[in-house]
Amino acid sequence: MRESSFSLDDAIPVLRATPQVLRAWLADLPDGWTKTNEGPDTWSPYDIVGHLIHGERTDWIPRLELLLAHGDAKSFTPFDRFAQFQESRGKSLLDLLDTFGDLRQANLNRLESHRLQPSDFERRGRHPELGPVNLGQLLATWVVHDLNHLAQIARVMGRQYTTAVGPWIEYLPLLRSR
Amino acid sequence: MRESSFSLDDAIPVLRATPQVLRAWLADLPDGWTKTNEGPDTWSPYDIVGHLIHGERTDWIPRLELLLAHGDAKSFTPFDRFAQFQESRGKSLLDLLDTFGDLRQANLNRLESHRLQPSDFERRGRHPELGPVNLGQLLATWVVHDLNHLAQIARVMGRQYTTAVGPWIEYLPLLRSR
Repeated sequence: MRESSFSLDDAIPVLRATPQVLRAWLADLPDGWTKTNEGPDTWSPYDIVGHLIHGERTDWIPRLELLLAHGDAKSFTPFDRFAQFQESRGKSLLDLLDTFGDLRQANLNRLESHRLQPSDFERRGRHPELGPVNLGQLLATWVVHDLNHLAQIARVMGRQYTTAVGPWIEYLPLLRSR
Repeated sequence: MRESSFSLDDAIPVLRATPQVLRAWLADLPDGWTKTNEGPDTWSPYDIVGHLIHGERTDWIPRLELLLAHGDAKSFTPFDRFAQFQESRGKSLLDLLDTFGDLRQANLNRLESHRLQPSDFERRGRHPELGPVNLGQLLATWVVHDLNHLAQIARVMGRQYTTAVGPWIEYLPLLRSR
């Protein structure tokens, strides 16, 4: 392993894949898998898709564009980690998957329209809690945030079978982590 | 959350989804994502797909059929966790994704051909290391094993950007776990 530095050529295919991964994974599953969480104050796969939608609307590209316009003179708008509980209300998972796919595609188009160069990755912004950040870090975080939530979906689903796997739990680190 | 007991109606859609999830995720990614691991003695996404193939060939359905034929009178054949390093040699990731999809479909057909009833889930088998197990636990483990490796793929990929995300690492549990 060698850690990679951020590049658009690496990042964009991962960002493009996420909506199709979610669709391939969740679209045909019974609600028992997609609407079940890990206990109080945890999220189901359905909640996670709603959270990803809210990120497309208010986080990644809006923050990128704020940074491009104002540098670190303006802090990013704080992100609401619970918005999906209102916004997803009454919507089916298939609706959410469609919405996420459309928003992600539009945001990738916006990203490409800025024709960023590697030198832009050093441009400074300001996070309301973390303080100084740069553009490359923001975009790398967009990628890892997707992956973080894909891993979370696997864990949330897997934990439903914590007891059902019996002694095999010993070989399944997924069921022993948080 | 309420943990689920094992049922075929729940398990089969998850098992059916995995090959299409892997294809949607990995098929269009540069090798830098799919051929990179987490360091010595760890696996890349490419290695993981090879491992899943070996499981289809030698683990889940062969063990199920051994259990159906012999109960706990015969131990399962030990699983080779390193077979993929030989077996995948010279094959492209797309080849592996095709092979996994074909084997999984064939194994789901075999699973359905046994017309298992919930009462069958109690039938006993013997694991070479774990000892007494039952049929339901074997099938639940098949499901969680898929999910475990999907979470692993997310982590292996995400960790390439451990440094690139800068201060955001604080919000990304994926990068702080093993």
